Amino acid sequence: MSEPTPKSPRASLTESTEIVLPQHTNAIGTAFGGTIMSWIDICAAVSAQRHCGRVAVTASVDALEFTAPIRLGDVVILHARINAVFRTSMEVACSVHREITETGERILCAEALLTFVNIGPDGRPAGIVPLAVETEDDAARAKAAVERRAFRLAQKHR
Amino acid sequence: MSEPTPKSPRASLTESTEIVLPQHTNAIGTAFGGTIMSWIDICAAVSAQRHCGRVAVTASVDALEFTAPIRLGDVVILHARINAVFRTSMEVACSVHREITETGERILCAEALLTFVNIGPDGRPAGIVPLAVETEDDAARAKAAVERRAFRLAQKHR
Amino acid sequence: MSEPTPKSPRASLTESTEIVLPQHTNAIGTAFGGTIMSWIDICAAVSAQRHCGRVAVTASVDALEFTAPIRLGDVVILHARINAVFRTSMEVACSVHREITETGERILCAEALLTFVNIGPDGRPAGIVPLAVETEDDAARAKAAVERRAFRLAQKHR
Amino acid sequence: MSEPTPKSPRASLTESTEIVLPQHTNAIGTAFGGTIMSWIDICAAVSAQRHCGRVAVTASVDALEFTAPIRLGDVVILHARINAVFRTSMEVACSVHREITETGERILCAEALLTFVNIGPDGRPAGIVPLAVETEDDAARAKAAVERRAFRLAQKHR
Amino acid sequence: MSEPTPKSPRASLTESTEIVLPQHTNAIGTAFGGTIMSWIDICAAVSAQRHCGRVAVTASVDALEFTAPIRLGDVVILHARINAVFRTSMEVACSVHREITETGERILCAEALLTFVNIGPDGRPAGIVPLAVETEDDAARAKAAVERRAFRLAQKHR
Amino acid sequence: MSEPTPKSPRASLTESTEIVLPQHTNAIGTAFGGTIMSWIDICAAVSAQRHCGRVAVTASVDALEFTAPIRLGDVVILHARINAVFRTSMEVACSVHREITETGERILCAEALLTFVNIGPDGRPAGIVPLAVETEDDAARAKAAVERRAFRLAQKHR
Repeated sequence: MSEPTPKSPRASLTESTEIVLPQHTNAIGTAFGGTIMSWIDICAAVSAQRHCGRVAVTASVDALEFTAPIRLGDVVILHARINAVFRTSMEVACSVHREITETGERILCAEALLTFVNIGPDGRPAGIVPLAVETEDDAARAKAAVERRAFRLAQKHR
Repeated sequence: MSEPTPKSPRASLTESTEIVLPQHTNAIGTAFGGTIMSWIDICAAVSAQRHCGRVAVTASVDALEFTAPIRLGDVVILHARINAVFRTSMEVACSVHREITETGERILCAEALLTFVNIGPDGRPAGIVPLAVETEDDAARAKAAVERRAFRLAQKHR
Repeated sequence: MSEPTPKSPRASLTESTEIVLPQHTNAIGTAFGGTIMSWIDICAAVSAQRHCGRVAVTASVDALEFTAPIRLGDVVILHARINAVFRTSMEVACSVHREITETGERILCAEALLTFVNIGPDGRPAGIVPLAVETEDDAARAKAAVERRAFRLAQKHR
Repeated sequence: MSEPTPKSPRASLTESTEIVLPQHTNAIGTAFGGTIMSWIDICAAVSAQRHCGRVAVTASVDALEFTAPIRLGDVVILHARINAVFRTSMEVACSVHREITETGERILCAEALLTFVNIGPDGRPAGIVPLAVETEDDAARAKAAVERRAFRLAQKHR
Repeated sequence: MSEPTPKSPRASLTESTEIVLPQHTNAIGTAFGGTIMSWIDICAAVSAQRHCGRVAVTASVDALEFTAPIRLGDVVILHARINAVFRTSMEVACSVHREITETGERILCAEALLTFVNIGPDGRPAGIVPLAVETEDDAARAKAAVERRAFRLAQKHR
Repeated sequence: MSEPTPKSPRASLTESTEIVLPQHTNAIGTAFGGTIMSWIDICAAVSAQRHCGRVAVTASVDALEFTAPIRLGDVVILHARINAVFRTSMEVACSVHREITETGERILCAEALLTFVNIGPDGRPAGIVPLAVETEDDAARAKAAVERRAFRLAQKHR
């Protein structure tokens, strides 16, 4: 079987938009961490599935940092993209912005890196089409993802 | 006060992405109608808020047609845009597609037309920045929206 | 097979009662549109199922108008009834009132018209027992439903 | 201040209708006990509020028996009524039936007795308009409620 | 087949911890009764399953008393334990405390007694391993549970 | 003001128990990642609040690894504990096990490390009572947390 043609990270960009309702908040009127994590998980999973063309399952959240509060009534925009593709897994980056309704300005509120595993028809991890590194940013992201993965594997095997 | 500069429908396009989980389904394994309606309401409300720069509330769902079933596990993409702006209200169109993971093909599953009212700082309906009609499609949408509104008002005053 | 005996709209009247909890509200303390839509969908679906004696699925929301705000803590009463029966579909009307606890007074807050399709044992649209038109109101509702349907079909085939 | 006119139990009868969706079920495909309890709590609270004309809070569930399983897709009908009124509390009975769509037959699946306390404008328990005992069934229910309350108070003060 | 070795109530103690979020509250800012009932049902079910080693379903809530309000933001701790084992059913006690964050003090807010039925591999009620009564408290709980059950059965057969 | 007495990690251990219902699952019948993340966030937040005696907010999820699938109907047990205390933040470890009902055996399914910030009465980050390192495991955990924090800070300031 011939090698599959690499796919651009542009082909799997994913955007999602939410409004923070009371059911999404905690006792102090900001978005509940678990809600934001759920939204990130969905948005990143769609991006992973768009790249590999199959169901992808969350293997790990490698980093998720909250940088600004998200409040009741806020419009929230999530963006996910593939950083790097390994043999049967992918690193996906997801950013979370809130949008000021009056001005349209967007403020970064959270950033996350997640790893998804591609599940084949037999229910086991399966190979993934390579990522086409096209821009300097693509290359920088792929390089950083490889370093993070090496660091995590090193920690495990200590 | 000078007239505000009309805003393009492109400036308020809104996209949202969801995955149909068991909590979103009905007893026969397809997406529960109320779930899809909630997703449409959020996506269309964000588009309305982006145009008028303030909180917008749903005044009516003028039409919502389900054209193909949405199933458990489907990736669902919603798009909303402004069709027409009246004095204190806007007609927003929202489409719902499911995306075939293997091929990326998108199938139209539902279409809706909603009317939102712009709520001013005093809690009452407030004037809205006009819509810049830029393309033939923009003009056709605005014209159809005006006709639908006239028809609804005529029905009411019978 | 002999023609089934027509059924009265009285036989499929459906009532439901809810209390608006914080999980049902939006950021400005009123009931979230999507919640009301979900409640309407359930109440109307039960009415449709009671008439046709089988699972009925939402084909369209033909009109849904919000006429007064519903607030946190409100008792909400929904009523659904069959307006008209077509070959494999039914028009169902659903009204939403809030009830003032102190006085029992009911205020109309939303009205909707929905179309449901009767799904047969083979999973395809199936014929429906006719509606017995018994009162002047029954006749007026059926007539208006037929006109709305003709209008919608005409719009589609333009 | 003159004694308030007693109110009939008929004046506070409450009916609610639900469909069991996957979000309401447990791992074995029947309705999750907590969901049914929530539906009972809402339906009974509305009946209590209708009688006392104010917000009523759940003080206790005195008995709740599940007598037949409720399954995914079932139409569920709840009925609540006032059994007896004490100084600042009321006993409310709530029944839960599922309705066979094909025949309209209703099967009793759960029965509950709850006590609600009437909360006055000062946030403290407040006196309640008496219950008008009009039928033999009304009298039997009131008598049994009084006996249950005496039994519970006796157990507590042992 | 030899008699199974009785199991200590200590072997099936269950603890659960929750935080009251807006989605768990009612219109007056305290925990919604139905939410607390759902949490009790889950915690008690786990205790029952730990004792009988199989899926256990809720047969009845024999008593559930709310003794102090639970408010938005409260940390809530639930404890469940087996009081008594009958032929195919068990009485489970569940307590609900809120914990004052500043001091760690716990305040009893609700107490419940529930009966669960052990479901065997054939889907029918099945025998349960006996309860090892080890302490005076164990014995007192078992005795009270037997009395309550006798009272309930007597009421039914009147 | 004198230095506060260090608190043992044992004083803030937190346990929570859940059952995986259909509303917690994804399309392939396992627990939805976002649900598990929400449960972890709550359990870890309670542990953080128990240590600092005030509301603590999630600053980051530093690592969350899924190691075994969690399925519909599984009993899930979460444990959280403080690993290390910094000036105004704490690292909390949270483990997620599923429990085999028949045998009581517990299988590790996920592990997470989170950072919480202590919020003072003025709404700003506030100092935290030190952690009493009492065992070898306590010391190893604190040391590893300090190393991870240094690594993260180094990455940021590159």
